[in-house]
Amino acid sequence: MGRIKLTVAYDGTNYHGWQLQPGRATIEGELNKALSNLTGEKVCVTGASRTDAGVHALGNVAVFDTGSRIPAEKFSYALNQRLPADIVVQSSEKVPDDFHPRHCECCKTYEYTILNRKFPLPQYRNTAYFYYGKLDINKMCSACKAFIGEHDFAGFCSSGAQVQSTVRTIYSLEVLEEKIQEPGMCIIGNQKGGYNTANTGSIITIRVKGNGFLYNMVRIIAGTLLEAGKGRIEPDDMEKIIASCDRSRAGATAPARGLKLVQILY
Amino acid sequence: MGRIKLTVAYDGTNYHGWQLQPGRATIEGELNKALSNLTGEKVCVTGASRTDAGVHALGNVAVFDTGSRIPAEKFSYALNQRLPADIVVQSSEKVPDDFHPRHCECCKTYEYTILNRKFPLPQYRNTAYFYYGKLDINKMCSACKAFIGEHDFAGFCSSGAQVQSTVRTIYSLEVLEEKIQEPGMCIIGNQKGGYNTANTGSIITIRVKGNGFLYNMVRIIAGTLLEAGKGRIEPDDMEKIIASCDRSRAGATAPARGLKLVQILY
Repeated sequence: MGRIKLTVAYDGTNYHGWQLQPGRATIEGELNKALSNLTGEKVCVTGASRTDAGVHALGNVAVFDTGSRIPAEKFSYALNQRLPADIVVQSSEKVPDDFHPRHCECCKTYEYTILNRKFPLPQYRNTAYFYYGKLDINKMCSACKAFIGEHDFAGFCSSGAQVQSTVRTIYSLEVLEEKIQEPGMCIIGNQKGGYNTANTGSIITIRVKGNGFLYNMVRIIAGTLLEAGKGRIEPDDMEKIIASCDRSRAGATAPARGLKLVQILY
Repeated sequence: MGRIKLTVAYDGTNYHGWQLQPGRATIEGELNKALSNLTGEKVCVTGASRTDAGVHALGNVAVFDTGSRIPAEKFSYALNQRLPADIVVQSSEKVPDDFHPRHCECCKTYEYTILNRKFPLPQYRNTAYFYYGKLDINKMCSACKAFIGEHDFAGFCSSGAQVQSTVRTIYSLEVLEEKIQEPGMCIIGNQKGGYNTANTGSIITIRVKGNGFLYNMVRIIAGTLLEAGKGRIEPDDMEKIIASCDRSRAGATAPARGLKLVQILY
């Protein structure tokens, strides 16, 4: 009884994003269906982050109100029996009746994954952006500094968003590189003529934490860091690019499939 | 011109295994189709490992003969433009005309992946076996020793295989555990009442290298190591279980989705 908070993991590949759309499979729609089936009530969840089509999550958050006497922590088990395999509730807990997942202060963590090697790997085809060219990781790391702190990120926002303010605070932004090691093989020097010639390569993870993100903001940050990695934007210019609030000076919006909402901490 | 060796990665989820079957999508069938389309010849590949439905590969090997004048190393690029996204050729190279991927001496590496935590993760639903109960990793590691070396593995083979000998050599067998860390969260003590109560858990990888494997052998080894992890088989009994050559004394055949052919070194 009362308000229940769900932490939800999903593979967004086969969904038209989070938000309910008539006649289309969405995460919100599947949750509403499973909850209504379970409780016998007409349940509508409220999501913390309305992720786009193709975007994934380890820990998105949704709340709903119910008169059901099912104990809060049992909802996760009962829902997982009613949800498709690509949506899994990770936890369910009772929260105060005034808890709202979008209006409460929080820290959100997103990750953007880039597969950087000569050829794609099928296992990553829906969860990483494949890029075969040379990327300068040091430049990508250097370019991160300018984003940290409170800034007007109007230049890192796609049009179509209805927000009162484009000021957001980024707590941390980091670029991590993990070499792909094939067991039993040595890693051969991996850059030659601008390409990763050894078919090993690396997984590059852009991890960002902030108090909130504008529409497509993480994907535009990822696209801009990619430009830094390609040598097309100098890390030292990043401060001016952010301050310009000019969308055309930032990089392209990186593809949805590389993006994953990792965690929301309230 | 001549014999060409392909190294092929695939996500086996949507295929009825490697081997050609009329009217069904198979890895071999897709490769034959792409090669015939590319060369204009009727090409039939010979595979090193005829993986089952649902089994994945990072580096399976196939060879074919061709009269085409396309340089050997260009086949990978040209084929990837003709193959579905879940099959990617990682390299192509010329080999001697008498090279046969099944009759030449080699070292094969397989990995079996287990997701061990309270709830499944959608991202692993096709590439790992989900198990929520407690697993004693130390017992699984201890149970590995008895497998190393040359043994008659008749007890670790599904019926239906046509082989002259059930003797195989295992060069190494190891169990690796990687804790799943959610950024910004501590790992809470993860065992209570036999379940992983903290929703973090771990990825357990069983990695085995050998000169060849019988039908379902790696999946039966994985199923047997799982029994050791559950405390149902004592590591000290493993030697006798192998020596018995009795299929009923080994564990169940673990599900296909957790298995991945990592590499074949000739």
